[in-house]
Amino acid sequence: MATYEELLKKRRAIRDFEDKPVPQDVVDAILKEATLAPSASNNQPCRFAVVHCRKTIQALSDESKSNLLQDAADGKIRLNPDYVALLKNDNFNVFYNAPCLIYIAGSKAVGTLDVDAALAASYIMFGAASRGLGTCWVALGANVRDAKLKAQLGLSEDVRIVAPLILGYPKAIPEAPARREPELLRVIVEARS
Amino acid sequence: MATYEELLKKRRAIRDFEDKPVPQDVVDAILKEATLAPSASNNQPCRFAVVHCRKTIQALSDESKSNLLQDAADGKIRLNPDYVALLKNDNFNVFYNAPCLIYIAGSKAVGTLDVDAALAASYIMFGAASRGLGTCWVALGANVRDAKLKAQLGLSEDVRIVAPLILGYPKAIPEAPARREPELLRVIVEARS
Repeated sequence: MATYEELLKKRRAIRDFEDKPVPQDVVDAILKEATLAPSASNNQPCRFAVVHCRKTIQALSDESKSNLLQDAADGKIRLNPDYVALLKNDNFNVFYNAPCLIYIAGSKAVGTLDVDAALAASYIMFGAASRGLGTCWVALGANVRDAKLKAQLGLSEDVRIVAPLILGYPKAIPEAPARREPELLRVIVEARS
Repeated sequence: MATYEELLKKRRAIRDFEDKPVPQDVVDAILKEATLAPSASNNQPCRFAVVHCRKTIQALSDESKSNLLQDAADGKIRLNPDYVALLKNDNFNVFYNAPCLIYIAGSKAVGTLDVDAALAASYIMFGAASRGLGTCWVALGANVRDAKLKAQLGLSEDVRIVAPLILGYPKAIPEAPARREPELLRVIVEARS
């Protein structure tokens, strides 16, 4: 098994995948591991919808793109002009033609859902990397409102999507883009008596 | 270096620490590693305030406790009655007398700050565990409003705290409390042609 140091290099945002399905038992193992993620008061609020069907992934991409463009047209959100061009491109799949998509969702009533889901997402990303898989959190793919698609995913009205993660075997693992040094606002040292 | 499998067992919420300071160079190494965490559009919005001074940590605990009790009295939040009793107990330090406290904060203008900070928090938790340190995300410790304390931490008005993480050498690493099986809303399989 990989050391954590190796995983830190392997855990990269992957947007280019081999044409190879991800077995559901591998997904199951990753999700089981992700239950070890901490959550506020150990509440474990995350729920998962897993999509291996390329037609459904395409439909979810189309749905999310059209909702984003509509929201931008209605002035509800502001989109970077580069994104607008991309979202208008019929050939652009927000999920980068990944063979598998995992939605992390949970009850709208859970105040800490965003951070709980993000912690679970990090476990899924590391768990995938430790198995030779790549992931990417595709925020553009979270905008699913169509009743039929929501029903297909098992998303009831009281549930919202936090993180759409794509999953697959990477064609390559790119180098990490440059990171800034950690920005320390303050270091308050121990007062010596 | 530990394998990821070992880290999954070691990364536990730790609330009981050895009376031993955490060297700042260890904190620096962990925070540098945490810059590898993904963030929306690689925006890297996290900022850190690190407190080794026990008197300051105590003051931050007192501040957070009194703000929470005030908010509950004002009906702004609802607190579990067990928490009320705990917060009223002068001997209860929300940071469990940890020798080190890291605040992850960032600009209020960043819409994805919660999830970006949670992803960085998971890197800090794993990075700490890989160095024999323990952490716990103490949400009760995030309620810092006092102008003097905020200035001490370098928190300007446009910045908010997402995650207070305590850090130290654990007296013991407890077993993980029981986790439920992952709750799969749906698994949509590939349609075979």
